Amino acid sequence: MSDAQEMLVTAYDEALLGLAEGGIPIGAALFDSHGTLLGRGHNRRVQNDDPSVHAETDAFRNAGRRRDYRDTIMVTTLSPCWYCSGLVRQFGIGAVIVGESTTFTGGHEWLAAQGVSITVLDDRECIEMMTKFIADRPDLWNEDIGVVE
Amino acid sequence: MSDAQEMLVTAYDEALLGLAEGGIPIGAALFDSHGTLLGRGHNRRVQNDDPSVHAETDAFRNAGRRRDYRDTIMVTTLSPCWYCSGLVRQFGIGAVIVGESTTFTGGHEWLAAQGVSITVLDDRECIEMMTKFIADRPDLWNEDIGVVE
Repeated sequence: MSDAQEMLVTAYDEALLGLAEGGIPIGAALFDSHGTLLGRGHNRRVQNDDPSVHAETDAFRNAGRRRDYRDTIMVTTLSPCWYCSGLVRQFGIGAVIVGESTTFTGGHEWLAAQGVSITVLDDRECIEMMTKFIADRPDLWNEDIGVVE
Repeated sequence: MSDAQEMLVTAYDEALLGLAEGGIPIGAALFDSHGTLLGRGHNRRVQNDDPSVHAETDAFRNAGRRRDYRDTIMVTTLSPCWYCSGLVRQFGIGAVIVGESTTFTGGHEWLAAQGVSITVLDDRECIEMMTKFIADRPDLWNEDIGVVE
């Protein structure tokens, strides 16, 4: 298992936790460049009734206040939406590892153009999890990405 | 006082509240197209020890879960950073009213290019408030926008 794949396990476990809570199964984790976990989290729209907590924002929050994100790596099960891509850009997070961008593509190419290191893993389990969730709960999924039906 | 200027008062009051709490004085409010307040909030980095709560994300959160943001207006005392600009883009918020973009310019021109209605008010009181804050607390300000000193 590559380092990236290994870090993805933490994000994937967060997504499973969110699913078990009745939420949207997207997980994320922030690591430093040595692979030390700084914070992990998952989408909390349903659980907290809070539209502002995406997986990446939850992991970022749980990592606490920091002065420098250049050496950090945001690992997420799904391509970061514009909200979460904006987070990465504003705080200068140096790298993003994306579980998959098959079911949804946010701003990871825009981030790459800004110099952020982007790795897309095309992880089969991440794809299956989101494919099933989107089929089961299109209403919730569309709400979470601001798509008006 | 124009409608935009009137809505800015709510955001400005939020910024003052944040300043009184020892925080970063940036405030925001989300309104519907009739001018009805949906949610208001301010930066809570210091107060909540939470780097993920910018003024716009706080106002967005306080407006609760919604299915459609096209008719909403985000009013903020300061040009939205990339994080908050990404929020506006992802959720399809139709309009942004910016108190000022003199002390900091985030992604409001990027949003305008995406079809978001942008109004920059160049409000003197907003400019004075941020100018003073940035001079008083450059460390905190740089932390909040991810600038490494």
